[in-house]
Amino acid sequence: MTEVLSSAVTIARDLLRCPSVTPAEGGALQALEKTLQSAGFAVSRVIFSDTGTPDIENLFATIGEGRPHFVFAGHTDVVPPGDLAAWRHGPFDGTIEDGVLYGRGAVDMKGGIASFAAAALAFLADRGPAFGGTISFLITGDEEGPAVNGTVKLLDWAKAQGHRFDACIVGEPTNPAALGDAIKVGRRGSLSGTITVTGTQGHVAYPHLARNPIPGLLQLLAALDGLTLDQGNDRFEPSNLEIVSVDVGNPAFNVIPARAEGRFNIRYNDIWTLAGLKDRITATLQAAAPQGLAYTLDFKRDASESFLTHDETLIRSLSDAVEAETGRRPDLSTGGGTSDARFIKNHCPVVEFGLVGQTMHKVNECVALDDLDRLAAIYLRFLQAYFPRREG
Amino acid sequence: MTEVLSSAVTIARDLLRCPSVTPAEGGALQALEKTLQSAGFAVSRVIFSDTGTPDIENLFATIGEGRPHFVFAGHTDVVPPGDLAAWRHGPFDGTIEDGVLYGRGAVDMKGGIASFAAAALAFLADRGPAFGGTISFLITGDEEGPAVNGTVKLLDWAKAQGHRFDACIVGEPTNPAALGDAIKVGRRGSLSGTITVTGTQGHVAYPHLARNPIPGLLQLLAALDGLTLDQGNDRFEPSNLEIVSVDVGNPAFNVIPARAEGRFNIRYNDIWTLAGLKDRITATLQAAAPQGLAYTLDFKRDASESFLTHDETLIRSLSDAVEAETGRRPDLSTGGGTSDARFIKNHCPVVEFGLVGQTMHKVNECVALDDLDRLAAIYLRFLQAYFPRREG
Repeated sequence: MTEVLSSAVTIARDLLRCPSVTPAEGGALQALEKTLQSAGFAVSRVIFSDTGTPDIENLFATIGEGRPHFVFAGHTDVVPPGDLAAWRHGPFDGTIEDGVLYGRGAVDMKGGIASFAAAALAFLADRGPAFGGTISFLITGDEEGPAVNGTVKLLDWAKAQGHRFDACIVGEPTNPAALGDAIKVGRRGSLSGTITVTGTQGHVAYPHLARNPIPGLLQLLAALDGLTLDQGNDRFEPSNLEIVSVDVGNPAFNVIPARAEGRFNIRYNDIWTLAGLKDRITATLQAAAPQGLAYTLDFKRDASESFLTHDETLIRSLSDAVEAETGRRPDLSTGGGTSDARFIKNHCPVVEFGLVGQTMHKVNECVALDDLDRLAAIYLRFLQAYFPRREG
Repeated sequence: MTEVLSSAVTIARDLLRCPSVTPAEGGALQALEKTLQSAGFAVSRVIFSDTGTPDIENLFATIGEGRPHFVFAGHTDVVPPGDLAAWRHGPFDGTIEDGVLYGRGAVDMKGGIASFAAAALAFLADRGPAFGGTISFLITGDEEGPAVNGTVKLLDWAKAQGHRFDACIVGEPTNPAALGDAIKVGRRGSLSGTITVTGTQGHVAYPHLARNPIPGLLQLLAALDGLTLDQGNDRFEPSNLEIVSVDVGNPAFNVIPARAEGRFNIRYNDIWTLAGLKDRITATLQAAAPQGLAYTLDFKRDASESFLTHDETLIRSLSDAVEAETGRRPDLSTGGGTSDARFIKNHCPVVEFGLVGQTMHKVNECVALDDLDRLAAIYLRFLQAYFPRREG
């Protein structure tokens, strides 16, 4: 296994030295292309454009033939380094100190890509290109940005090229504390909305000549805050609604304002469809609104559906690999925020497993070399299980 | 009475032609000084200053000797004219059309000053300076502004000069629809406050790692909104609390904010002392706050006490005069906003009576010439009743 291990660290270090802050490619896709080409992958670099967003470079690489077709998905773009003075080492230097590799993207998620690339190289070195299926990389440079010119378009592009995927692992950092904590097998959906109540402005000394919109908004928000959407189920936590802002913006203590606005976000499980949840929120407000209250409810257009992956082969193969390397059976989690898995689930079963997320998006983002090695070993075990040697 | 009447219109027109938008003197005090000096008043012009506010010119004029000492209070400063194009006549032209005098300050309250000056001149012409008491004018140029360098300091200045007042009429426009509607015999107090709830910022996908301050604030504000402070009494309307703003200022739907703020104003009657009301609000929030909620309550320092004037001679003399001229007994009102009466009540009994307020602070502010005349006649009748001729 020594070769796989040293290879993961080397690839990760090369990627970390590329300043690929969204939307810049920064040399990261170029470095990955070189690595994959050397192992025989057919690599395509695809640029997508859209009005109002920067052009984004993406990479699709594939090797092998026929089904099953496994795809590894991820992103080489990173969030900005933030306060440079607070970094122990340059965020794009790839410095190793005391067995730890530092750099923006170390865990989110150049490290994950490096571990999978190392695993794929080792797998192909052992089995050759006729291993009985197809392995692809679906890598975007637009995960931390508007996500317009990235995974969604790359999936459509691959489909148009004739690719049909059977299973996907997204290499995002899914482990809260230690490698092996959790595989993500689904995601809650997200629904945001804005409630605007309109009244009539006036002087506080003459309240009968005004109509204060705030008490009505408070009643609507209290109704939302008091809503128990569900109790969760064996795979998902209970759905949760948070009121994220309330705004009037009235600087004068002697003026009754004309308008008040409240905003909320719901993270919801697979007990709800998006349409059903919207209906429930709409009905809750209707029931709570005082007679004659003038209000509007606007749902944001970026809502996402919840999903749960049911591919037992994919989940079991990955769980077994994690347990074999870490000694622990990973939780099958559906918690946390959204990722590109929300797009991939429309194409094939998808799970997420990568490094430990503790330092992601922070200064001094870093990964233990040992974690890179063990993640590569887990991915390799997974590939061996997913593409079993044919008898004879 | 003809002389009194024409005099009120002439004085009003002279005052309206002075562009005395706060803090500018604009020639208005100069014009008033000339009028009063011609009738024998001793006139003092006093400028007050304070850090962070403009210097303000004020006027104190006095005639007669000994008690009772009656003082008429008012202001020559006016609010800005607003949209000049919307004015039928120039706001500082003093144009008369169809028996109506147009101009900024026509009713608020150069017209009231002019009517009282005309009444005082007629009274003195009839009775001479030895009428058996003292009549003073207490006129500021800072009523529509920060009210720092105006009535408060002028009252202190007059006190330091040895003046002790027995009764005051403030000439603000107290009549909602027609001359004779209402004398204001008191004012509600005003108390403003800010509630700030502190939580812990976090991502909406991980609510257990954050503490959303908004639900706690909603509970506190609902408790305030649901508060019935009192039912009012025979002189005052019920006290009223308005929530005037709620602000979080969180632009992100996926972030739980760290801080939420609500602001309120209370207009309260004489059932409450300021201290008692503060205690009630503090206790209401304590009772409503969920266990462990981190919040602060800050009362604004500009709170004012409610007051009710009990001087029956003052109220009856003025009510009789109004009834004699208009045929109606005026309501004794305590409604509406604050005025400089809140400062004067600390020196002597004070009531307010002036013109009809419908056009105040609006474009085309105006006063019927007939109203100026009748108000002068009312003030004259009041002076005659307040300073009865001595027998012999």
